Amino acid sequence: MTVTIIGIGLIGGSLGITLKESGFATRIIGVDARPENLHKAIRRRLIDEEMSLPEGVAAADVIILATPVDAMLRLLPELLDRVGGKQTVLDVGSTKELLLDAIDEHPNRGRFVACHPMAGTEFSGPEAAVPKLFAGKTCVVIDGERSDLDALDTARRLFTSARMSFSYLGRKEHDLHCAYVSHISHIASFALALTVLEKERDEQRIFELASSGFGSTVRLAKSSPDMWVPIFRQNRDHVLDVLDELIEQLAKFRTQLIKRDFDGFYERIEKANQIEKILK
Amino acid sequence: MTVTIIGIGLIGGSLGITLKESGFATRIIGVDARPENLHKAIRRRLIDEEMSLPEGVAAADVIILATPVDAMLRLLPELLDRVGGKQTVLDVGSTKELLLDAIDEHPNRGRFVACHPMAGTEFSGPEAAVPKLFAGKTCVVIDGERSDLDALDTARRLFTSARMSFSYLGRKEHDLHCAYVSHISHIASFALALTVLEKERDEQRIFELASSGFGSTVRLAKSSPDMWVPIFRQNRDHVLDVLDELIEQLAKFRTQLIKRDFDGFYERIEKANQIEKILK
Repeated sequence: MTVTIIGIGLIGGSLGITLKESGFATRIIGVDARPENLHKAIRRRLIDEEMSLPEGVAAADVIILATPVDAMLRLLPELLDRVGGKQTVLDVGSTKELLLDAIDEHPNRGRFVACHPMAGTEFSGPEAAVPKLFAGKTCVVIDGERSDLDALDTARRLFTSARMSFSYLGRKEHDLHCAYVSHISHIASFALALTVLEKERDEQRIFELASSGFGSTVRLAKSSPDMWVPIFRQNRDHVLDVLDELIEQLAKFRTQLIKRDFDGFYERIEKANQIEKILK
Repeated sequence: MTVTIIGIGLIGGSLGITLKESGFATRIIGVDARPENLHKAIRRRLIDEEMSLPEGVAAADVIILATPVDAMLRLLPELLDRVGGKQTVLDVGSTKELLLDAIDEHPNRGRFVACHPMAGTEFSGPEAAVPKLFAGKTCVVIDGERSDLDALDTARRLFTSARMSFSYLGRKEHDLHCAYVSHISHIASFALALTVLEKERDEQRIFELASSGFGSTVRLAKSSPDMWVPIFRQNRDHVLDVLDELIEQLAKFRTQLIKRDFDGFYERIEKANQIEKILK
């Protein structure tokens, strides 16, 4: 199969290597608004060749949209205008409600499969692409019943070749869940980094004292604003709900410290420990 | 040297293996209020033998206090009552101000070296002990000028054998820095876990959707309340200052979302990204 990837960053680039290695793709075409991304991607062999968007779409069996989510909102209707009845379009974005609302009535809606491979790192760009990013992780398929059966089947075979398993959600449900398990973690991490940067002027000290605990909690604070601001924009309402809850939980710890209610503090840590049962 | 470790948990147990392997200790004696910890520690060869506290102190060249910090506050004066002029006592606790205030006037103050090896994991107990926990990390020595030179030298040789480097701080400075780089990370992680547990009743879903990002941010939420509540109790004032700042940073993100000020949101993420320059 010929696969055209639009947006050769961490996810797009990693899919390029992975699908070539798995044998799903015989030819990977890259499309990107930034020529330097395409040059790096060719040098790193993430893609076989570069094309313009119209050429890349015309040449592909499968088109993967892997740009930031604001660009997806602009590009997806155009892609669906261009594809024929045997081509499959899929995306890999972190927010779905606005994207799917925008193409509900498109005559080629069935050719599109909304996908969210739950995999990533705090790094971005083609230089961050790695082959085993997806193995063992979950790919969420959103509103799968709105896709043509053969398109859905192609998307499933593609992510199966990347060794992912599947989960199925509606668009609202997906965006809410992601606000909880992904988007809020990033905001917490950004806020923690800002807290420390604000108060700790002595950077050498932070570095020396930052045991691995701090490092893992602020790891996500290195994440790119180009990727994340469009996600927070599109998922604003759900993220606000979850953020209110997080601030409330922190305010409760604050009140317990002020009142020296350490028994209550203990109970709430015990409750938080239950996250262990859920996460590996 | 004979080393007696009081409190055979993650840190005490890991020191047991490490100091035996490095050759610093020829004999490791374990003291613990919980007999099952001693049994596990002997079975896992973290210690050579168990003793009562008075016996263990009498037999040792070096005594390491590795209990939760509330027990340290109770035990340290007793240890200093018992030791002679050639023995060295050190602790490995995460808070120092109250502990050091309590022994400032003790006639054997010089035999004590306040240490904080900045190493740990979210797990606890002797079953969590591992040999390479300390290698490459920093050990902070607090108010080192108050220790006898030979005691300080012994403590430095001990942690050098565990392949740690050193940093030197005053007690207030230490507790404030730790509030920033360690204690607040734990509170943020507990709060995030509670946020998700509160709202997401469908545990299977969290598990499926939790990509590695969420996992690393809530990793610390598995940490033991027996260890952490005494730390928050002793470092309450500094932790409250930092917690206020964290809540303030989150509230700013909230206001930016409400006002749809995504340019401001972008700028603050860019600022948070600077943490990358500090952390490896």
